[in-house]
Amino acid sequence: MMFQASLSVFIALLMGILGTVFVVWELKRVLSYDQGNERMQSIAKAIQEGANAFLSREYRVIAIFVAIVAAVISFFLHWQTALCFVVGAIASAGAGYLGMYVAVRANVRTAAAASQNLHAGLRVAFGSGSIMGMAVVSFSLIGMTVLYLIFNGNPNQITYVTGFGFGASSIALFARVGGGIYTKAADVGADLVGKVEHGIPEDDPRNPAVIADNVGDNVGDVAGMGADLFESYSGSIIAAATLGAALGAKSSAFIGLPFLVAAVGVIASLFGIYMVTADEQTAEEASADLSNASLLKKARRFVGRYVLKIDENASLDDLLTALRHSIWGASIVILIASFAVILLSGVSINYWLIIVVGLVAGNGIAYTTEYFTSYTEKPTQTIAHATQTGAATTIIQGLAVGMMSTALPVLIVAVAILLSIWLGHKADGSITAGLYGVALAGVGMLSTLGVTLATDAYGPVADNAGGIAEMSGLPKEVRHRTDALDSLGNTTAATGKGFAIGSAILTALALLAAYVTAAKIDTLHILGPTMLPGILIGAMMPYLFSALTMTAVAKAAHEIVVEVRRQFREIPGLMEGTAQADYATCVAISTESALKEMIIPGTLAVVAPLLIGHILGKEALAGFLVGTMSSGFLLAVMMANAGGAWDNAKKWIETGQYGGKGSEAHKAAVVGDTVGDPFKDTSGPALNILIKLMSIVSLVFATSFGSGWFSF
Amino acid sequence: MMFQASLSVFIALLMGILGTVFVVWELKRVLSYDQGNERMQSIAKAIQEGANAFLSREYRVIAIFVAIVAAVISFFLHWQTALCFVVGAIASAGAGYLGMYVAVRANVRTAAAASQNLHAGLRVAFGSGSIMGMAVVSFSLIGMTVLYLIFNGNPNQITYVTGFGFGASSIALFARVGGGIYTKAADVGADLVGKVEHGIPEDDPRNPAVIADNVGDNVGDVAGMGADLFESYSGSIIAAATLGAALGAKSSAFIGLPFLVAAVGVIASLFGIYMVTADEQTAEEASADLSNASLLKKARRFVGRYVLKIDENASLDDLLTALRHSIWGASIVILIASFAVILLSGVSINYWLIIVVGLVAGNGIAYTTEYFTSYTEKPTQTIAHATQTGAATTIIQGLAVGMMSTALPVLIVAVAILLSIWLGHKADGSITAGLYGVALAGVGMLSTLGVTLATDAYGPVADNAGGIAEMSGLPKEVRHRTDALDSLGNTTAATGKGFAIGSAILTALALLAAYVTAAKIDTLHILGPTMLPGILIGAMMPYLFSALTMTAVAKAAHEIVVEVRRQFREIPGLMEGTAQADYATCVAISTESALKEMIIPGTLAVVAPLLIGHILGKEALAGFLVGTMSSGFLLAVMMANAGGAWDNAKKWIETGQYGGKGSEAHKAAVVGDTVGDPFKDTSGPALNILIKLMSIVSLVFATSFGSGWFSF
Repeated sequence: MMFQASLSVFIALLMGILGTVFVVWELKRVLSYDQGNERMQSIAKAIQEGANAFLSREYRVIAIFVAIVAAVISFFLHWQTALCFVVGAIASAGAGYLGMYVAVRANVRTAAAASQNLHAGLRVAFGSGSIMGMAVVSFSLIGMTVLYLIFNGNPNQITYVTGFGFGASSIALFARVGGGIYTKAADVGADLVGKVEHGIPEDDPRNPAVIADNVGDNVGDVAGMGADLFESYSGSIIAAATLGAALGAKSSAFIGLPFLVAAVGVIASLFGIYMVTADEQTAEEASADLSNASLLKKARRFVGRYVLKIDENASLDDLLTALRHSIWGASIVILIASFAVILLSGVSINYWLIIVVGLVAGNGIAYTTEYFTSYTEKPTQTIAHATQTGAATTIIQGLAVGMMSTALPVLIVAVAILLSIWLGHKADGSITAGLYGVALAGVGMLSTLGVTLATDAYGPVADNAGGIAEMSGLPKEVRHRTDALDSLGNTTAATGKGFAIGSAILTALALLAAYVTAAKIDTLHILGPTMLPGILIGAMMPYLFSALTMTAVAKAAHEIVVEVRRQFREIPGLMEGTAQADYATCVAISTESALKEMIIPGTLAVVAPLLIGHILGKEALAGFLVGTMSSGFLLAVMMANAGGAWDNAKKWIETGQYGGKGSEAHKAAVVGDTVGDPFKDTSGPALNILIKLMSIVSLVFATSFGSGWFSF
Repeated sequence: MMFQASLSVFIALLMGILGTVFVVWELKRVLSYDQGNERMQSIAKAIQEGANAFLSREYRVIAIFVAIVAAVISFFLHWQTALCFVVGAIASAGAGYLGMYVAVRANVRTAAAASQNLHAGLRVAFGSGSIMGMAVVSFSLIGMTVLYLIFNGNPNQITYVTGFGFGASSIALFARVGGGIYTKAADVGADLVGKVEHGIPEDDPRNPAVIADNVGDNVGDVAGMGADLFESYSGSIIAAATLGAALGAKSSAFIGLPFLVAAVGVIASLFGIYMVTADEQTAEEASADLSNASLLKKARRFVGRYVLKIDENASLDDLLTALRHSIWGASIVILIASFAVILLSGVSINYWLIIVVGLVAGNGIAYTTEYFTSYTEKPTQTIAHATQTGAATTIIQGLAVGMMSTALPVLIVAVAILLSIWLGHKADGSITAGLYGVALAGVGMLSTLGVTLATDAYGPVADNAGGIAEMSGLPKEVRHRTDALDSLGNTTAATGKGFAIGSAILTALALLAAYVTAAKIDTLHILGPTMLPGILIGAMMPYLFSALTMTAVAKAAHEIVVEVRRQFREIPGLMEGTAQADYATCVAISTESALKEMIIPGTLAVVAPLLIGHILGKEALAGFLVGTMSSGFLLAVMMANAGGAWDNAKKWIETGQYGGKGSEAHKAAVVGDTVGDPFKDTSGPALNILIKLMSIVSLVFATSFGSGWFSF
């Protein structure tokens, strides 16, 4: 039996709707939790207002950009592509908005729930994360499938849908860059004056930048990460479908396959999410006689009691295990279900192996990320050790660890690409089939996105909850619980980052292959006349882009520092806690500068491939993309891991190593952590998007490039 | 008229001999200068012994490596290639040894001469630099040309001579890595305890690591830089000759051309060197009636008085102008002479334009390096500004400046490659001719190496002279003069670094093209099955390599710190200046750890391309080299410029900006400078060599690679 492409797409649409139903249901559930006392609610309200103000202003700026680009696309290409572009932008923005909407409401509820116990806190925070995760997956699927079905029968059907990916990419870029600048400007600014100059703790209500800092966690880590993975998710499916369309006789099955894999991924993710919340049973229920209850209830009890072993007294390790099991559980579901899908599709079993390769590679990269950034492992401990000889050696060691940490992810991705191409080639005898394999590996890696993103997006909620607990003066044990949840979030965030970066490179490669097909390029000799200039300029882009985003953070942080210092100087009684800080001004400064600073790098990313394609020609553009991809991948991994390792080296010292908090070693560690902030939360993750965005811009405009200004 | 290749090679040999004559003559001249008082001589002796001990032990380690590799080459390839390999290693080691031999003797003489005036000091130090510069050029030319003539008539003639480049590369790698680790371990170690913990100034004789630090300047900056450029110089000529041999009818002219350009480069360099020392006239001579004197003497007087305007009262600016003029003068000679050479060779005038492109590109990169690292310009000043908010923002801003500084060099190199390929292609209608053009641009860029290296290699001599002046308690104005010479050296070092990095990338590309020709690869599709894995792994190599070298510096510096702390603790009266520090132990520790730590990165660089070539096949190896080249180029520029900018930001603050020495801003600047040390003097420059070495390993073993383990 061979599925028609449109049937597969229709199934994916249904799954997207199912996911949306879950989102609505879960949203109600999360919002039904207790919001805590009045002080907590007023703080939460300030964060909500700050986040809302930023997002609505950011979206207004992006709307202008989207309108201009849509006009350009309509003019030079087709109105259909422009329509898809706008829909992609709206779908991504919608998922980001929803994720943030719930995150800034779940934070205070998490703080309130953490007053009971650890696990109650996790349930709220994770619920918020799962809304984000499932919204990303569902909105992406609904958007793409509806557009696909609208243009059904049109020969350019898939070309149009690439516009959806471009729209999603544009939102991702601005969300990541703008949000990244916002969050780190506020964070660095708050820390530099608060912690370093005045010696007041993190999240102290006397610090005027504290609300901006908490807003930043949401706009950067929730909305930014969501948009990033929305793009990868959509991009990998689009790339696979585009390459599948070029695969001749079986093309209908090949186009449908990524949609089907994504569809079963929705089920798998829901299963994974269910596993974490499976224990939600009252004490009475736990001891109640369930012999007459439904099978679902029994299964849930069984999973909660014997597999996850989490209950009201769960420890941090138990929770980590629960989260891990939920991802593994989802992966197992995917492996089984996609095997069935492959059989139904009538394509070679090799493609199932490719999906396995993608999943294993994603988990492998996640594992190495965790190894290099966790303070229970040697690499981060060497950084902590280096703090003893001061800030300089801390930085040197951190950079060295970051650079070293690139080796394994690169090897994993290289092997995954090689195996995917090889398996695809063996199955259908062409390199195009092999490149389709790469795209499918990316789809496989991201198929469990609903749950992996949930485990990642809950972290900032827990972080915020800690801030609210601190500011509203909740008992110490509450703060300890939220800290534990936060630290758990840091660990699972490593997984999220691993998937984000691994999928970015596979997606970008698949998009590049789709571009080469669409631009009708026959051969791309690596020593071709314009190829090496293209590669070099491409390799330079991530450096230029990182320089711009890091400078942006530095500039914006400087403005915050000046303002915070001014408030401490001019507001009498602020330091003593008798006067109220002016939070709104810091929020406004972060918003202003983030929006201002995101324009240049954002525009650069869209314009650069167009310039290269037109001046140096379509071959050079392929080289350019390869250069960006390889250099950007390395730089992104280095920055993300160095940043994570510095952060955790500091945390390790805070557990009492090398003199603990307040020691000289700790001061050096704080320097490392501060340098790592823009690395891991602004510049590094933004590179994922740069890589994909430039590939998809090239793909969308593929037919418009010629041989350039130089004739050979 | 069309020159035969062997005639051109013979002319180059003669010029090599001429250069050697100059080296011997200049060596006598420099050694004839006054060595200063007894205290100075005893310090100089300690530095000489330390440098000698390190170099002889380093060469012993390298000898083992050379013997093993020579055996491998004999076994798998030909004994002739092995012979050339050994000769290349010996020639490079010889030039390095000689350069260091004179540097550690010129330092004390420079200090003594600086007691008179600034210019007298420059004359000695620059004389030492010019010995290094001309030794590198001459030994390389003699070695290659003699081997070429020995194997004359043998069809594998040029293949054998590639072994020379491999030998030179191996020495370069170990000299750069070993020397780089040595110098920065001693420097960082000395600074961390001396300056930071005990508050004693740079080069204070109480600091037990002070001699090791001074030895380090010589083994790292003199011997290391010399070996680096020896390799580029030899590599670019070999690559051009190899590609020229593939150019059919006119191949004899094409093979000869790079040798001829190098030959006229010797004349040009001697002219440039002469211009700096042209004013060496006593007061009587200056006013003497020269109407009956020789034309040479008159010309010399004219140049000294009216062009260079330097005399005994010359200011720093005058000296800088003199050094600049000497490089420009040499460039003008090259432009005129190579025009004649092109006419004589009977090849298209386009190849002359290519030489011009190479020279302009080299100077262009040098200019951008200077712009980004000089404290009179904005980029470095932004770093100084960032010191006000502490070490973290200093690091962030420095990294951002380093990343930003990659844009222009990449664009310059990209345009140079594009123009070279285009001009060559227009002249002879093939891409191979274009790639030959790239190699020739590299030869053009390096043709003035004799003088550019002289302006670079004199810096460490001046630096050492300052150390000796400080330690032997010479009057303050002497130290001021040596500091001025040192700071002049830092400026001209930017030029040297620009040429080193620009030439590395052109040479590596030309070697890659030669490899593709030698390995008989027809097409290298960028989306070929093993190509992208190759590119990604290649792009990772510079990160892995930098991680290893940076960790090595950190480890070695840590050992020095422990030892220096021990001496301050255990030697009574050391801090008060009544007891003598144990310098020898610090020298021994630096030597030991540098030698130990250079093995792994060194071996990795040689083994990695062989593994890739055999496992993934010869096509993947080409991708691997492209990946290393692009990612390594970016990382090298970033590290070198960030390091230079941090260094000068600190120096700018020391002139009194932002509170000057001892202020909080200065402390932050010191952190930046310390992070920059391994960046700019160990890891960054070692990447130049990594890029070239892996290319030449691939070229030498080109015929041994097959299609790898994966069949498609």
